Amino acid sequence: MRIVDHIVSKRDGLEMSAEEIRELIQAFTAGTIPDYQMSAWLMAVYFRGMTDRETAALTMAMAQSGETVDLGSIPGIKVDKHSTGGVADTTTLVLAPLVAAAGVPVAKMSGRGLGFTGGTIDKLESIPGFRATLSREEFLRNLRRLRLAITGQTADIAPADGKMYALRDVTGTIESIPLIASSIMSKKIAAGADKIVLDVKVGSGAFMKKQEDAVKLAETMVRIGELVGRETMAVITSMSQPLGWAVGNSLEVEEALDILEGKAGSPELKEVCLVLGAHMLVLAGKAPDTKAARRLLVDALESKRALAKFAEMIAAQGGNPEVIANRALFPRAAFQQPVYLEQEGTIQAIDTARIGYSAMLLGAGREYKGQDIDLGAGLDIRCRVGDRVGPGTPVAVLSANDAAKLEPAAAQIKQAIGLGDRIAAKPPLVLGTVSKNGIEMYI
Amino acid sequence: MRIVDHIVSKRDGLEMSAEEIRELIQAFTAGTIPDYQMSAWLMAVYFRGMTDRETAALTMAMAQSGETVDLGSIPGIKVDKHSTGGVADTTTLVLAPLVAAAGVPVAKMSGRGLGFTGGTIDKLESIPGFRATLSREEFLRNLRRLRLAITGQTADIAPADGKMYALRDVTGTIESIPLIASSIMSKKIAAGADKIVLDVKVGSGAFMKKQEDAVKLAETMVRIGELVGRETMAVITSMSQPLGWAVGNSLEVEEALDILEGKAGSPELKEVCLVLGAHMLVLAGKAPDTKAARRLLVDALESKRALAKFAEMIAAQGGNPEVIANRALFPRAAFQQPVYLEQEGTIQAIDTARIGYSAMLLGAGREYKGQDIDLGAGLDIRCRVGDRVGPGTPVAVLSANDAAKLEPAAAQIKQAIGLGDRIAAKPPLVLGTVSKNGIEMYI
Repeated sequence: MRIVDHIVSKRDGLEMSAEEIRELIQAFTAGTIPDYQMSAWLMAVYFRGMTDRETAALTMAMAQSGETVDLGSIPGIKVDKHSTGGVADTTTLVLAPLVAAAGVPVAKMSGRGLGFTGGTIDKLESIPGFRATLSREEFLRNLRRLRLAITGQTADIAPADGKMYALRDVTGTIESIPLIASSIMSKKIAAGADKIVLDVKVGSGAFMKKQEDAVKLAETMVRIGELVGRETMAVITSMSQPLGWAVGNSLEVEEALDILEGKAGSPELKEVCLVLGAHMLVLAGKAPDTKAARRLLVDALESKRALAKFAEMIAAQGGNPEVIANRALFPRAAFQQPVYLEQEGTIQAIDTARIGYSAMLLGAGREYKGQDIDLGAGLDIRCRVGDRVGPGTPVAVLSANDAAKLEPAAAQIKQAIGLGDRIAAKPPLVLGTVSKNGIEMYI
Repeated sequence: MRIVDHIVSKRDGLEMSAEEIRELIQAFTAGTIPDYQMSAWLMAVYFRGMTDRETAALTMAMAQSGETVDLGSIPGIKVDKHSTGGVADTTTLVLAPLVAAAGVPVAKMSGRGLGFTGGTIDKLESIPGFRATLSREEFLRNLRRLRLAITGQTADIAPADGKMYALRDVTGTIESIPLIASSIMSKKIAAGADKIVLDVKVGSGAFMKKQEDAVKLAETMVRIGELVGRETMAVITSMSQPLGWAVGNSLEVEEALDILEGKAGSPELKEVCLVLGAHMLVLAGKAPDTKAARRLLVDALESKRALAKFAEMIAAQGGNPEVIANRALFPRAAFQQPVYLEQEGTIQAIDTARIGYSAMLLGAGREYKGQDIDLGAGLDIRCRVGDRVGPGTPVAVLSANDAAKLEPAAAQIKQAIGLGDRIAAKPPLVLGTVSKNGIEMYI
């Protein structure tokens, strides 16, 4: 079959076989079909969608397009977690040591990525000496010893996905649920996960702005998991305001440490970690239900075993665990500046993406691949929807190494906060779950 | 604006401005935007369509992407004719001298193209000595002197269309009415037409299989003409069976001569020429209505002035006009073979594309660009829907220079003819017209 026939059949809404999809992805990865045909196919997928069987076949074809990680030598069920991304999403930094401390191995491959702040790998690199690029052997050795290892994702993991994402990015074909779903799932599967817990975020700071789209994406990924034999469930969480207090790299690591120490940090961030962690423990067979699982997590947290686990990982990956006791060892920005609003009022809504953009203006994120990021830059924002604020109290504190960046970033913060006079209810944090048992929405 | 924004806006169904479309086409022609973005845009157009204003802007952008022909020095209104293509569509060879003989200048740029037979240019080259590639000066000189010149379309005419068509061909984006319409109209406009008569064919041998699609295409082109100030009208004609008797190159030229001589040839072919010609004369202001115009054409035909005009053109373009009197001067195929059906019955339907394919198998057409064609090869088919045929009468006569080609071609003919016992009505030939006055369908 010629590739143009694949394009036409997708264009006309016919279902492609798993074999045809595999051939297509193999040829695309090998470079034997030109990008202009792939992009036409992707646009046809945008309009026609994919059946569950097609999406599962695409996921497996991309997962198998490069190296795959075999975690078979690590005892226990390996449950990976993925977040669709948001602002002040410090989850992994708290969740990984927490779940590992509760007895479930956490083998994490994370990206650097583009965005408002660096990726998990960038954030961890704000710990002096921390090495985020482990060899395969090191990764598995640490995992066996500590039940916890985090490494950068190599280009060899699901290369078809990387190549396809780059093409989608410049051809208007990002916003397709089957393409988003297979992109996420292919990397998790290639990275060796037995089971997967997804944090699908929805709201002004998330990729999905509408709850119905978030649920649809979650459903698609749960069904992929079912079809490829990797049980998957999703928690739908709100990104209608920042999750943590800190937006940045070292700032987020510090907030994660605060939570693990039990001394400070965003209660919403902590809650999301407990909810996601509980589902991970249940999927791993470590607890019969989320209630029991939550008790195990709370115990790991309160006993400081989770904090100790983080310290072990820092040491095992070359970092200096003294940062925990001596925060001055973290990179710090030279300039701090509080942001005040001119009016008084009740926060009706927060344009969360704009908060993220403010952090990027301060130097915390990347606008293009390979760009240097400023590990100490970022901001701290603790006000939330429903809070009464006025000219006397700062709504955020900015950190930058270049004083000229402070004003534009402050302007973004001011624009992001929508004041009004009405009482505004606190928006719910955890909206529901999607699993093999169906959709359960709490609101 | 970045190109990806154009793709997204088309994908989301927004209207692009004429300026944006011009920029897009200029950049595509110049090669400054990659094919993978153009193909994604084309697929979005396939799904979203284009507004009339967008289609008109695309047409003008493509028409102006290269050289344009200025026919201003030729007296009179220049009316061009375009056919969407079919089998045994010998129309141009009869129509061009006929209309010129009736006093309206015919300046024709034709393609070679791919297909069941060669294009008009290939067909004319079966006349010994005929030169189908005229310089700009020669073309205009002949036109002034004879009111008739036919030349090959150079790559400089609407190069954006050629480049875009090549991309559409391999990305499943041919079948889009605004893209088809703008492709046709851009070339006619670049070639200098003041007004345009379209022969939009519908049926088993045409690109458009359904009448409603043919009407839609015609309407789109008529509206483009209106928006760009080149009055356009369309005749919808049937291609549910071959139009002429001959399918080939020299064979079609001979049939055209037969009709101009008034001694033989398909009556349907002659009728379509009279209908299209009448509309051309009316648009050119040579006759007040099609009835009067038809009288002028019949007179030009019966007086043999149309035949004399063809002879003049042959001589003016280096050909030997003796071919008219001495048909043995045409290239002739070495082998002739009649095709008989095994059963007796009434022809219910003809798969006309298959008849064309049979001619291609005999060597009359091109499967790929630049392929040599056999000017003497082809076939003669005179049976029509409603005819009673049986094992005693041949349904077609094949001509080939390679005897091995005869059997596969005969098998196609046999498969193409659907026999039955019911009486089958002769399908109507001219189905209606689409013009600035609206759609008028006869059936």
